[in-house]
Amino acid sequence: MKKISLALLAAGLVLVNGSVLAQQAAGAAMPAPVDRAKILVAPGVFGNFSTYKVRPDYYRMSAAERKGAVAEVLAVVDKHKDKVIVDAYLTRGFEAQSDYFLRVHSYDMAATQAFLVDFRATRFGMYSDVTEQLVGMTKALNYVTKDKSPTLNAGLTSASYSGEAPRYAFMIPVKKNAEWWNLSDEQRLKEIETHTLPTLGNLVNVKRKLYHSTGLDDTDFITYFETADLGAFNSLMLALAKVPENKYHVRWGSPTVMGTIQTFENVVKTLSMAN
Amino acid sequence: MKKISLALLAAGLVLVNGSVLAQQAAGAAMPAPVDRAKILVAPGVFGNFSTYKVRPDYYRMSAAERKGAVAEVLAVVDKHKDKVIVDAYLTRGFEAQSDYFLRVHSYDMAATQAFLVDFRATRFGMYSDVTEQLVGMTKALNYVTKDKSPTLNAGLTSASYSGEAPRYAFMIPVKKNAEWWNLSDEQRLKEIETHTLPTLGNLVNVKRKLYHSTGLDDTDFITYFETADLGAFNSLMLALAKVPENKYHVRWGSPTVMGTIQTFENVVKTLSMAN
Amino acid sequence: MKKISLALLAAGLVLVNGSVLAQQAAGAAMPAPVDRAKILVAPGVFGNFSTYKVRPDYYRMSAAERKGAVAEVLAVVDKHKDKVIVDAYLTRGFEAQSDYFLRVHSYDMAATQAFLVDFRATRFGMYSDVTEQLVGMTKALNYVTKDKSPTLNAGLTSASYSGEAPRYAFMIPVKKNAEWWNLSDEQRLKEIETHTLPTLGNLVNVKRKLYHSTGLDDTDFITYFETADLGAFNSLMLALAKVPENKYHVRWGSPTVMGTIQTFENVVKTLSMAN
Amino acid sequence: MKKISLALLAAGLVLVNGSVLAQQAAGAAMPAPVDRAKILVAPGVFGNFSTYKVRPDYYRMSAAERKGAVAEVLAVVDKHKDKVIVDAYLTRGFEAQSDYFLRVHSYDMAATQAFLVDFRATRFGMYSDVTEQLVGMTKALNYVTKDKSPTLNAGLTSASYSGEAPRYAFMIPVKKNAEWWNLSDEQRLKEIETHTLPTLGNLVNVKRKLYHSTGLDDTDFITYFETADLGAFNSLMLALAKVPENKYHVRWGSPTVMGTIQTFENVVKTLSMAN
Amino acid sequence: MKKISLALLAAGLVLVNGSVLAQQAAGAAMPAPVDRAKILVAPGVFGNFSTYKVRPDYYRMSAAERKGAVAEVLAVVDKHKDKVIVDAYLTRGFEAQSDYFLRVHSYDMAATQAFLVDFRATRFGMYSDVTEQLVGMTKALNYVTKDKSPTLNAGLTSASYSGEAPRYAFMIPVKKNAEWWNLSDEQRLKEIETHTLPTLGNLVNVKRKLYHSTGLDDTDFITYFETADLGAFNSLMLALAKVPENKYHVRWGSPTVMGTIQTFENVVKTLSMAN
Repeated sequence: MKKISLALLAAGLVLVNGSVLAQQAAGAAMPAPVDRAKILVAPGVFGNFSTYKVRPDYYRMSAAERKGAVAEVLAVVDKHKDKVIVDAYLTRGFEAQSDYFLRVHSYDMAATQAFLVDFRATRFGMYSDVTEQLVGMTKALNYVTKDKSPTLNAGLTSASYSGEAPRYAFMIPVKKNAEWWNLSDEQRLKEIETHTLPTLGNLVNVKRKLYHSTGLDDTDFITYFETADLGAFNSLMLALAKVPENKYHVRWGSPTVMGTIQTFENVVKTLSMAN
Repeated sequence: MKKISLALLAAGLVLVNGSVLAQQAAGAAMPAPVDRAKILVAPGVFGNFSTYKVRPDYYRMSAAERKGAVAEVLAVVDKHKDKVIVDAYLTRGFEAQSDYFLRVHSYDMAATQAFLVDFRATRFGMYSDVTEQLVGMTKALNYVTKDKSPTLNAGLTSASYSGEAPRYAFMIPVKKNAEWWNLSDEQRLKEIETHTLPTLGNLVNVKRKLYHSTGLDDTDFITYFETADLGAFNSLMLALAKVPENKYHVRWGSPTVMGTIQTFENVVKTLSMAN
Repeated sequence: MKKISLALLAAGLVLVNGSVLAQQAAGAAMPAPVDRAKILVAPGVFGNFSTYKVRPDYYRMSAAERKGAVAEVLAVVDKHKDKVIVDAYLTRGFEAQSDYFLRVHSYDMAATQAFLVDFRATRFGMYSDVTEQLVGMTKALNYVTKDKSPTLNAGLTSASYSGEAPRYAFMIPVKKNAEWWNLSDEQRLKEIETHTLPTLGNLVNVKRKLYHSTGLDDTDFITYFETADLGAFNSLMLALAKVPENKYHVRWGSPTVMGTIQTFENVVKTLSMAN
Repeated sequence: MKKISLALLAAGLVLVNGSVLAQQAAGAAMPAPVDRAKILVAPGVFGNFSTYKVRPDYYRMSAAERKGAVAEVLAVVDKHKDKVIVDAYLTRGFEAQSDYFLRVHSYDMAATQAFLVDFRATRFGMYSDVTEQLVGMTKALNYVTKDKSPTLNAGLTSASYSGEAPRYAFMIPVKKNAEWWNLSDEQRLKEIETHTLPTLGNLVNVKRKLYHSTGLDDTDFITYFETADLGAFNSLMLALAKVPENKYHVRWGSPTVMGTIQTFENVVKTLSMAN
Repeated sequence: MKKISLALLAAGLVLVNGSVLAQQAAGAAMPAPVDRAKILVAPGVFGNFSTYKVRPDYYRMSAAERKGAVAEVLAVVDKHKDKVIVDAYLTRGFEAQSDYFLRVHSYDMAATQAFLVDFRATRFGMYSDVTEQLVGMTKALNYVTKDKSPTLNAGLTSASYSGEAPRYAFMIPVKKNAEWWNLSDEQRLKEIETHTLPTLGNLVNVKRKLYHSTGLDDTDFITYFETADLGAFNSLMLALAKVPENKYHVRWGSPTVMGTIQTFENVVKTLSMAN
């Protein structure tokens, strides 16, 4: 009778009409779900990464209540599917600061916030502490373009992932120092070319995606990787460590977040188990 | 019967006459509310930024009790409206360390404290952990003035925000190293001019406001921005990263706090929801 | 019946005869209270600064119990008044890491500990988390003396505070690097003179006091200020930032602690309120 | 009746069929236990180090419930024995941040995660906070090989541990700066040779094992040691501090984790005791 | 009936036969207590420093239960007296991160662990959070020896403490950078001589003891001091700050832990009081 969630369900303050924010953002009705293939390659898209740790008291709820967590989370994902897409990763066993992380894409950062606010109001979200949160946006290539660096651009374009389905994902923030940003555009292009060349070989077994964050967060970039081959990923990162560009890094990782690629459903289910 | 808030309401130790501090600060009765348009452009005004994270146990209160939170908060705002103005921002979904932040302006820092003490004594305030708190004050322009830098001053004066209503706000502390402060006034003016020029173009889509904090807090400046265009804001911040002044920064961000601009009422309502 | 404080009061383990430590320190009975005017200017005095944050569960006690907190705290102050003097400051609304801070002076550091141990055994102290604790001692002037720097010494001696009663206090730790300490005494005197000159003008509106901490704590100095004029204080600190001595700082602030000057009674009362 | 663990045991959400992840990873049945002797010397093996601190509320469970913890943990180890091997170390009394640490080896990082997820779902795991988590992989020697450095390689090969059975283990992460990684392979080989020579003498009383982590985690290497002679280990580490390679370290330790080598059973038993 | 300690006492999982570890370490029965005078001057002795903070919930236990804490702790000290000696210090009022610290000496680090494990299983230990833990070992003088530096060695040998009984103790970790360790032995000797000379005068009022920790922990040395004269100690530390060796420090303090020298009994009694 004194259970928390029952009290909450019984009360009027529930997500019947969604959050104030969601209503604002939902101004223009947009019935079609976000096109996943399209949003993942478009520039001007907002990427939002958040890591979470399930609080110990989650496991003091009855197993029945925890069982309901999955459906509640999926309902929130479904409610926002015309505005955001969500990817989930299990980090327990790899990270001390988190049990899972989410990657959310949208064309409107407020829509992402609306989704995350609703997620945090679910039982599972409520028992999760946010431990890291990074925001960024995608842009068109601005260094290794067809014009500025034709050969390398061709290499980048032709190289494509041919490994088995990726099982692991990495989220790694990168921040550069004032010396880097005070280089001329030509100097930076040269460094980027030097960094790109030795990594072309890894594009067959590591997928990459870049988000720009300067000013939006305490990082300049969020780099995101997927792979099935952890050794290849380690080789790629060593190659990046061995180029001069590395000398301009003031943050590379901290945290490095590694997770297995999972459905959101599986992440919630796995983390809801207890003996 | 054993509910906290009921016990508190039943007790004598409530805010009937307001806090000791408020009474002190309220020495001279001042019936008129603070003029928002005026205080936001005046020099010698105190700015106080605080970020908050709602504690998980807030959601263990009954929904009915949480419902009352909004009215209680608004009553405190109203009580202090002749001394302070308050802006509220929702950061949940953007920041790991906070769910919302407040910006408070007053002509007397003690009046700001009196307001914040009263706010923290409300149920919503009591269940909020302060995670960052920065204080500063406004000053008249002291580098790019009509006298010292006439052309740039004209540029600054004529450039004005013409974008759509800002939806996002950023609070970013800036601290400079001893080398910066040991430059001559002329050298610093030159650097500031170099930094100002490439940012003039962004004044049409990003609003800025500067607070001085040296000695008052562990930062030299608090920079505050509003925008509807996150891409433009990212471009502005990149432009600032690319000037030599950046080499003198020992803190730029840490934290960078991003929120959506909301009424205080909406912030409290949104964060009081739970499934 | 299950209330904490009742259980404690009913038990024998209370402060009837004071702490073991207090009894030790109290070896020689000394009936007269500490002379405030004298101890605040004497060399060889121990200064102890501690910042506190009231834990949320304090507000779960009944208002009646919280009401009793003031008397309990004042009784402890009175008990130790022949050994220590205590100043209290309200920091809530200015600092994220604290709600109040204490400055304790004594001629014997163990007497200070005895007082603080007793304070922490009161209900208010028990519900307060110590978040920073710095110790230091006063010394006679050792650079800008009559002998070594007669003109500046005269300036320091003649300048005296003439502003209105200070309302704000600041506690700012300072630590210098190995290069500073490896300068010759003459070089350090020169730097101190350079730093003193531009600050003389501020002595009329900012009071200062210096504590030495090398080896006693992870700081070399604790600087303490009182003022009624925050703008003047900001100007003073900017002047100190602009001298070469600043280049030798490895810690200046971190934390900068700002509070309003209050009676201990008011601090406890204000922080015991809840809606 | 309101005991946590009883509620959990009574519920359906238990580890009857194991975690989702375990089922996925268990795709190919592999009945034979991992060959310990083989996996500890093979390249391409994943090493996973995690440190844990038992939460105080563990000791609020009844002693009977805590007694069951050992069997539950051993059952999980047994369940995963065809995929992972687990070593356990007691750190209480040596480390502030942990009470024990685990070293897990597998040929598939997802299998390691599956084990750790199941471990965390046991009562003992559930009451343990993960405080550090590092992942790496083994590789074949790539500097001091027979080809590149024949004499030293011979020295390494012939030197073998001849001390008494090791009682202590150390886990020490190492991260190198951009200057190190930007050296040529020849330069790095030279530094590694310089570092190896003075340590050959210690191979008789200190066992070593190296894991590579660049990109997988916020460290480049995890170095692991076993010894019965702490003085010899201290001498070895001093020898490593005295070579030029040390100048390239940005992380060496932080944390240095020291534990006694124990069976997992003993670790759980020892940490389940309470007076 | 639902009291924790009663439940624990009623259960079988108590310290009747001591910990698994203690039994292992106790392999060879050794009935005589450790010789304090001898172990404090011998080389090859292990020193273990740990700082603790009493958790607030300790004071929610009944005063009667807290009263029993002293006897329980002393019983553990007595049980291990043939293997370890323990010194206790009260830090409350001096340190934010701790209320007390322990210094434990033994000839076998596992015996120290066995003692600390048993201590943590007492009620007082269980309600104490370990906040810092450093391990080291004593060695014979290796720089200022009779051979290498005869005059200084004579000075060190002849200088002896003649102040009143020390009331204060300090524990200060020291870590040196790679440049220090890459100096030749002769260069380091020269620096140590330069550092020793100005401190000889302080040996009459400050006692010192040195522990070596390279590799065993994230520090190179643990320096321990006792004094009755805080001003003299401050002077000593200033003298050490003013020699070139200071330029090689990457850690000197952090934390600096200051306590009053107490019996373990008094420390437990003092921290068990509550109003």
